[in-house]
Amino acid sequence: MFEQRGPWVRLSTSVVHENPWYSVRRDAVLRPDGTPGDYFTVESSPAVFVVAFDELGRIPLVRLYRYTVGRTSLEVPAGSCEPGEEPLAAAKRELAEETGLSASRWDHLGVLFPANGLLREENHVFVARGLADTGSDDRAAEGIDEVLMVSADDAWALVADGTITDSQTVAALALASATPTVTQASPGS
Amino acid sequence: MFEQRGPWVRLSTSVVHENPWYSVRRDAVLRPDGTPGDYFTVESSPAVFVVAFDELGRIPLVRLYRYTVGRTSLEVPAGSCEPGEEPLAAAKRELAEETGLSASRWDHLGVLFPANGLLREENHVFVARGLADTGSDDRAAEGIDEVLMVSADDAWALVADGTITDSQTVAALALASATPTVTQASPGS
Repeated sequence: MFEQRGPWVRLSTSVVHENPWYSVRRDAVLRPDGTPGDYFTVESSPAVFVVAFDELGRIPLVRLYRYTVGRTSLEVPAGSCEPGEEPLAAAKRELAEETGLSASRWDHLGVLFPANGLLREENHVFVARGLADTGSDDRAAEGIDEVLMVSADDAWALVADGTITDSQTVAALALASATPTVTQASPGS
Repeated sequence: MFEQRGPWVRLSTSVVHENPWYSVRRDAVLRPDGTPGDYFTVESSPAVFVVAFDELGRIPLVRLYRYTVGRTSLEVPAGSCEPGEEPLAAAKRELAEETGLSASRWDHLGVLFPANGLLREENHVFVARGLADTGSDDRAAEGIDEVLMVSADDAWALVADGTITDSQTVAALALASATPTVTQASPGS
């Protein structure tokens, strides 16, 4: 059961909370300085984030109410992978469900980790191009109030003025901007 | 106890897990469509993220091992507010502890929310300028292996090539780039 993890040693592990969306694991550890302690990790399914560009370079952002933080949030289409679902399949599903759009070209930009002091959750960031209306969506069921199409410059203005507060949306937009082959516009450009 | 929260109604609430770093709250709710259910929220103290610029426009990044995700991570100096500690005071403390630097000018850029599908945690992003060595630091105690000074362009290259995987670091760098008064360089510039 002893397991070396970088400069830490895991002595034992158990799940101390579980709900349908995530669980909390308690590991008894030896810290890097050799002293004993606990490390609690929230474990959540991989999630996907889609930065889609239409033929005019506009990005769909969805507006929804976030119960956790008690406010409305403007975000790129995103969601968790279902059990056994590949990230690309989840990205296609979430884009369609939340915006009614399909895409002909998909690029996987990378994997980011949010709140990695307490959370273990992969965030797969995709860029989608070649958008077409699917003719249907599940916006209401997904809790989506509205879909806005904004230019990349406008998206960065919404970050700068505090309208966009979803950290993972900001990170996904930045990864899309920073990746040379998909650059549309940059914050501050 | 009934509380309207946007399109949700909270019927009751209780803490179902608690550890020294965060807690998990279970709310019995009526969903926007009126059906009953549970909403589980991880509640964590506000955290601070510091994008500091030296006189050459270089940004300190700290390298540390992240137990949750089992990998080494390159991040802006960051950490949680202690009980009763203001975000600015926490930002000054974290910058000093993790890099040995103080700063003469501080700008609060905004508040982001990471993993807001499950987590309630404010992330305060600061830009710091006018850096000076304090002559001491707690890098070892903080688990910091190394402090790198990188240009903004190099930081964005490290995001694009997948070296920087910390979502909140990417978001903090992007917010600093997108905010007009503090712009140094942009992803893709």
